[in-house]
Amino acid sequence: MEKLTLHEYAPSGNCYKIRLTAALLGLDIERRHYDIMKGETRTPAFLSGVNANGRIPVLQVGGRFLPESNAACWYLASRSPLVPDDRFDQADMLRWMFFEQYNHEPNVATLRFWKAFVGYDNLSETQTMLVAGKQAAGEAALALMDEHLAGREWFVGHHLTLADICLYAYTHVAEEGGFDLGALPHVTAWLGRVAAQPGYVGLGD
Amino acid sequence: MEKLTLHEYAPSGNCYKIRLTAALLGLDIERRHYDIMKGETRTPAFLSGVNANGRIPVLQVGGRFLPESNAACWYLASRSPLVPDDRFDQADMLRWMFFEQYNHEPNVATLRFWKAFVGYDNLSETQTMLVAGKQAAGEAALALMDEHLAGREWFVGHHLTLADICLYAYTHVAEEGGFDLGALPHVTAWLGRVAAQPGYVGLGD
Repeated sequence: MEKLTLHEYAPSGNCYKIRLTAALLGLDIERRHYDIMKGETRTPAFLSGVNANGRIPVLQVGGRFLPESNAACWYLASRSPLVPDDRFDQADMLRWMFFEQYNHEPNVATLRFWKAFVGYDNLSETQTMLVAGKQAAGEAALALMDEHLAGREWFVGHHLTLADICLYAYTHVAEEGGFDLGALPHVTAWLGRVAAQPGYVGLGD
Repeated sequence: MEKLTLHEYAPSGNCYKIRLTAALLGLDIERRHYDIMKGETRTPAFLSGVNANGRIPVLQVGGRFLPESNAACWYLASRSPLVPDDRFDQADMLRWMFFEQYNHEPNVATLRFWKAFVGYDNLSETQTMLVAGKQAAGEAALALMDEHLAGREWFVGHHLTLADICLYAYTHVAEEGGFDLGALPHVTAWLGRVAAQPGYVGLGD
């Protein structure tokens, strides 16, 4: 495989999920840090050279750049046991990854960012109005995960896949966003199973 | 392939992209309509039998149910020319599909829904406050697409892929949401190329 470089902001769960995928696969990945709090992903050099969308993470593969965290995980894990061969299971894994970006991340990750990084007191008026809706939508996403995990160990099939890794990234720090995982026994047990995987690395590692 | 049934609300671009994928592949798909304006995807029967997330589209494959529009497109198109074999191109295609669900659909599709289906006069106070931000974010997503398409015919590689289909669905009706495509020549030309594909069906077909 060509040289891998992760353009990232380390505390971001979207960046962490790529590092976790690489670690579970035993892949070396060089890390290049940008401070999003200082606008380092909005500079002309970043926009023209790394990602015109001004966002991290971006996985660099040799001289090519791949934005979108879940697409980067796919690149690393395709043709590995982290992606099922079965046609339906493969699509079902992607289903949970799209759910993660649509129903989970904009609520669970955004409230974590607003609470633990920006500070609720520093939010704009519009952001403040959105907190209650994002709290309810994030709780609904987590409840749906808990219901799905009742009686099963992994999101798809019978072993860990990218669906688990991508959903784990922001779920395991959801309490930093004000979400209570105590009432979600199946999610809590599943978090433990992910963290027990050989090769696992934590968000702060 | 097992029998395919699409649980849908026909005017939804997320449902249309699945029909367009099936049409381009020559696959038969039975359609089952739900009126989301009347809450027909929030009934106990729908939540327990079709999708616990209360959303359409859901692709039914035999007796199994697959939510998330882009995952459904993947199921239909995997192992077809609509999905590149090359490892990087395949991930890059997914990159644009995640971009579509994160940066495009919540802005371009939501404003179309609010303007053309709900009516701006019927929005809640919070929704009304969000219109300007969604307009700006939708314009940024469309501008980024136009920039990417300068000098190239398709989003990934040298032929039509799911990235084009998934981005086409809401882009070709973006003007219903108040977006001006007149200033986006590369997007406009690309829309024409998609519509000229053999087997193409329109949103209203």
